[in-house]
Amino acid sequence: MVEPASRYVIILKRDLSLAPVEKRGCSAEGHRVRILTVVHSDGALASYTHTMAVSKCRRLSGAALRELLDSVESVLFDCDGVIWRGESAIAGAADAVNLLKECGKRVLFLTNNSTKTRAMYVDKLRRLGFRAAEEDVFGTAFCAAVFLQAEARLHGKVYLIGSGAMQQELRNVGIEPVGMGPDPVSGGQTDWAEVALDPEVRAVLVGFDEHFSYMKLNRALQYLKDPKCLFVGTNTDSRLPLEDGKAVPGTGCLLKAVETAAQRQALIVGKPSKFMFNCAARRYGLDPAKTLMVGDRLDTDILLGSNCGLKTLLTLTGVSTLAEAKEHQQSGCPMRLGMVPDYIVESVAELLPALQG
Amino acid sequence: MVEPASRYVIILKRDLSLAPVEKRGCSAEGHRVRILTVVHSDGALASYTHTMAVSKCRRLSGAALRELLDSVESVLFDCDGVIWRGESAIAGAADAVNLLKECGKRVLFLTNNSTKTRAMYVDKLRRLGFRAAEEDVFGTAFCAAVFLQAEARLHGKVYLIGSGAMQQELRNVGIEPVGMGPDPVSGGQTDWAEVALDPEVRAVLVGFDEHFSYMKLNRALQYLKDPKCLFVGTNTDSRLPLEDGKAVPGTGCLLKAVETAAQRQALIVGKPSKFMFNCAARRYGLDPAKTLMVGDRLDTDILLGSNCGLKTLLTLTGVSTLAEAKEHQQSGCPMRLGMVPDYIVESVAELLPALQG
Repeated sequence: MVEPASRYVIILKRDLSLAPVEKRGCSAEGHRVRILTVVHSDGALASYTHTMAVSKCRRLSGAALRELLDSVESVLFDCDGVIWRGESAIAGAADAVNLLKECGKRVLFLTNNSTKTRAMYVDKLRRLGFRAAEEDVFGTAFCAAVFLQAEARLHGKVYLIGSGAMQQELRNVGIEPVGMGPDPVSGGQTDWAEVALDPEVRAVLVGFDEHFSYMKLNRALQYLKDPKCLFVGTNTDSRLPLEDGKAVPGTGCLLKAVETAAQRQALIVGKPSKFMFNCAARRYGLDPAKTLMVGDRLDTDILLGSNCGLKTLLTLTGVSTLAEAKEHQQSGCPMRLGMVPDYIVESVAELLPALQG
Repeated sequence: MVEPASRYVIILKRDLSLAPVEKRGCSAEGHRVRILTVVHSDGALASYTHTMAVSKCRRLSGAALRELLDSVESVLFDCDGVIWRGESAIAGAADAVNLLKECGKRVLFLTNNSTKTRAMYVDKLRRLGFRAAEEDVFGTAFCAAVFLQAEARLHGKVYLIGSGAMQQELRNVGIEPVGMGPDPVSGGQTDWAEVALDPEVRAVLVGFDEHFSYMKLNRALQYLKDPKCLFVGTNTDSRLPLEDGKAVPGTGCLLKAVETAAQRQALIVGKPSKFMFNCAARRYGLDPAKTLMVGDRLDTDILLGSNCGLKTLLTLTGVSTLAEAKEHQQSGCPMRLGMVPDYIVESVAELLPALQG
């Protein structure tokens, strides 16, 4: 029996040389089907299967929210824009998060911000009233170090465009970073091309670095000209949003500059890369189907959740808006469907009455 | 009558909702036809018409080269990799270029390098043995100033990420640049978001700047948050190639960083933007069909020529290789066909015997 218009299955077929651009019908499973063909600019046909519930983007409250929380074992929170903004906790967030823990949920914190160590995050969490331990926090400074040490099994030093926190997390796993701090330019083009390099460097890691400069960009290029040199980035966020619509350039800008120079793409550790979830999932044996990702950004938090098969909850206290989520949902564009959250609340504070009710 | 396999017309149709991905046949004009449909990731259908001569990429010498030169009135030369490399002229280039002038051809120089004024280029050209006047040289420092003054009719200052040469060319057309030289970082995120801005700035211009830094990137973002602030880039070259395969990061890297922060795309003045040709064409009344573009880069020089309907000649003394040109030709990808040169010579020095013969 065909489901009553509640779901679409969108199938993008490879080599469907006479396929219409779009066709609706019924799949073998009885779902409403939309077939789309995407031809990339290099002539290749894309192949995807995507399930889109029209019932996504649901505003939850009360019993429905309680039901969602009952259905999961673990809740992953993004930090900035979700549980805090700058140096202030979102009103009610600490009580909600702490009560989740008391209800027996595993609560973890996943943040793309690379400027703090796990220890620094725990300090901040506790200062703002959240119960947390170092092991609960997965920031990109920590995850990048784990990636290089455990995943890439790096033997050698790292040329680091990044923060003191990244330097510390690398050292915590036994990797020596070089290149920290200002790197002023001198001489001319030939000098730059022949700049002194550390022969033990085997990877370039790019995170947030307020000392980013032409010379750092150049040094990264000279290392990355060796195709054996690994190239890793913490995250691709283009801006760090601040209060009142203010913003400063994010790590994504520095990474784009280095990628353009190196003519290579970095491996990305942070959301929406699956590595960020796997990093936590392996340590805690998380079951994706029983895990809820809570975030304020569609292109990082919600997309990570979709990429990893998690349930997703968007909060409206940060970067993304309900209108943007709806736009993605109605776009009919398969690339954008992963950015549609399952559920929406105004603020994580709404979890508190749901848990108490 | 159908032409004997010498030409394809590639037509990409808009709203061809049941179009096959690829189909070959005959056009009304009797050419062999390939129809391709491209669906972009946002769901839009692309629309292009492209003519590809299978006889492109022809190695020319002797009489055939003479014939080509006889067929044109004007010859546009890229500089680095074509007539010089670094501080040395390509062997035989000066004699060839000077003889072209003696034969009555209009010879102009079009370069994406933004680090020299017209006056500085003429000094260098003469030093290396080329006959040239300031009016013959179209560098991106000059062309960006012309663009802002004559095309954009800018009333206000320019925030300049660029060189002293760009500063000079802007002043030559009566525009005041701000922001030159180092801009060291201090304070924290809130200070950066509230950095002092010049209220008279109406445009951000990005060219090559060895003092590029996080603070310059941030300042550009703060100006560009105003959607009325114009955003212009000199060129998108990702690297400045030097001798022996060495290279340093090019303006394209800095521009990508600013574009990522601003979440806007810059208007590009340099090759392959048509503006670069138009800038010269308007001053000299150039007839595209009687103009030859000579360059060493497929993605800038040759693509500019294709974009503007010029004849194109690739030299193999610089960045691009014959293999790359052939790859573009055989790719069947419409986006790449503009990077296939009409003709190829090893070096501009080969023009000399052709002219003398």
